[in-house]
Amino acid sequence: MTTPLRCVLLSETLDLARLFGPVLSEIADAVEVVTHPVREGAEAVRLALAWFPPADAFSRYPNLEAVCSIAAGVDSLLACPGLPPDLPIVRVVDPEQARAMSCFVLWHVIGHQRRFRTYAENQARAVWMPLGQQAAGEITVGLLGYGRMGAQVAADLAALGFKVLAWSRSERPPEAGVAHLHGADGLAALLPRTDVLVNLLPLTPETRGILNAALFRRLKPGATLVQVGRGDHLVEADLLAALDEGTLGAAALDVFAVEPLPAAHPFWRHPRIVITPHEACDASPQAVAAMLRATAEALRMGAPIPHAVDRRRGY
Amino acid sequence: MTTPLRCVLLSETLDLARLFGPVLSEIADAVEVVTHPVREGAEAVRLALAWFPPADAFSRYPNLEAVCSIAAGVDSLLACPGLPPDLPIVRVVDPEQARAMSCFVLWHVIGHQRRFRTYAENQARAVWMPLGQQAAGEITVGLLGYGRMGAQVAADLAALGFKVLAWSRSERPPEAGVAHLHGADGLAALLPRTDVLVNLLPLTPETRGILNAALFRRLKPGATLVQVGRGDHLVEADLLAALDEGTLGAAALDVFAVEPLPAAHPFWRHPRIVITPHEACDASPQAVAAMLRATAEALRMGAPIPHAVDRRRGY
Repeated sequence: MTTPLRCVLLSETLDLARLFGPVLSEIADAVEVVTHPVREGAEAVRLALAWFPPADAFSRYPNLEAVCSIAAGVDSLLACPGLPPDLPIVRVVDPEQARAMSCFVLWHVIGHQRRFRTYAENQARAVWMPLGQQAAGEITVGLLGYGRMGAQVAADLAALGFKVLAWSRSERPPEAGVAHLHGADGLAALLPRTDVLVNLLPLTPETRGILNAALFRRLKPGATLVQVGRGDHLVEADLLAALDEGTLGAAALDVFAVEPLPAAHPFWRHPRIVITPHEACDASPQAVAAMLRATAEALRMGAPIPHAVDRRRGY
Repeated sequence: MTTPLRCVLLSETLDLARLFGPVLSEIADAVEVVTHPVREGAEAVRLALAWFPPADAFSRYPNLEAVCSIAAGVDSLLACPGLPPDLPIVRVVDPEQARAMSCFVLWHVIGHQRRFRTYAENQARAVWMPLGQQAAGEITVGLLGYGRMGAQVAADLAALGFKVLAWSRSERPPEAGVAHLHGADGLAALLPRTDVLVNLLPLTPETRGILNAALFRRLKPGATLVQVGRGDHLVEADLLAALDEGTLGAAALDVFAVEPLPAAHPFWRHPRIVITPHEACDASPQAVAAMLRATAEALRMGAPIPHAVDRRRGY
């Protein structure tokens, strides 16, 4: 029998104990969960599970050896001013989550292809008007970001016959059904061919504000934006202007600079914006528990931690 | 050089010359297209392309050898009182069309899974409320009909992780990702497990009115109906009652007993009905032209006509 590793839950925005309590109890043999702020035995805390951790939280736990993110994106941890500079960060990897993302994106891509918004507008006026059809092969999806989720999205879109152009940081070998592009030249080649632009980039200093007026103007006129990265990728005023001037045809937004999106925000009532409340996909509680167990195991063995993040890259 | 086979266009509801003119000119070497009513040389007409043909049209063309349907469903031809009893009927088969159907159905299935209608209602009130997520594997799609389109729909849904139960007339061998059911017992087994019911049956005396109150009551409560068969499969009053009593959660209707759907019809403004104007999928003009060429070739050679319909079955 080994002693369970002590793990503290750190979030200013979510009740992690409520969200993950049932599955955490199932890994009690490996991980002992304690609630922040820990009154006694803080020095025995070696692991944290976090999402927007409090700025001063880390200073209470001098013997932390790793912090696990409940999301694939770890920007909420990297942005925490109190994060110790050498503390390993671990991100959750969940095949089910990638598939959920893929179906979410697919819904928006098919919605664009088959013009379901126009049909809904026509229905509201009892107007019967077939709009003709574009085959999947006539629709090009430009994918910004090609991590685990991007790869699943690309594979599922390509399997259904959509054209996929994927843009990422580094060069990649050719792949069935997906054309890879990288660098400024790659982005310049992707944008004018794109009918639906899907943002799945990690949030880093290089990608912050990448969805801006200059980028929108380079897309095919009337393109749809599917924004499932992070709110700070998008310059919100530029989006509204691009929709109003017709540069963009529509936008599906799942992430926002401020969440929950304030009730007075103009996005809510824009007729060509579809809003979902940061629900494109969640890692399952089971995947979060598996990450904690694997991290605890690695720490105990002194082995490399699976899915540790490269801090310089930011993902 | 062979003489092109003379083919007449027969439709009371569509302008087939406008819809198919460009591709028909590309097969002019094989098929000579003439317009109904043909004044001279009617006896030389050996082929017809049809969709809701006029009741008395066939009597003008005594030497017709086959009639081709622009759609996969041939009920509009079979319902024509003037159709000669032994005239072969040919239906269009288009792999692109099956894929278009598949994406159309997928959009409605994912819409049900991810609760996009509720998110739209929440957006209208500026309400931010994550609704949780069901994995694709928690959604069972019950598929009525398993022809070429049904098989494509089933394969694409299964590849994305949805559970698929397919019901058809005759027993089928097991298949990866799709459970096959048949007969009254099969339908009884399918309905109570079904979250999304997709109707892709051919319209025959046996299937007319199959979507009725008794069937709706056997579905999982709150199920979604995706009606992409024929309008006469559905008992319209039963659908409205099932939605109002909550037996059905929602319905996506693409086909109707009367098309265009009259502006005063209650379906148009029902908040849980999504209407599209018989646009789930069209056969491409290229596929229609290919059918005419293949039929003309078979007639010329005295060979069996590809994709001829079994009239007793009705498909």
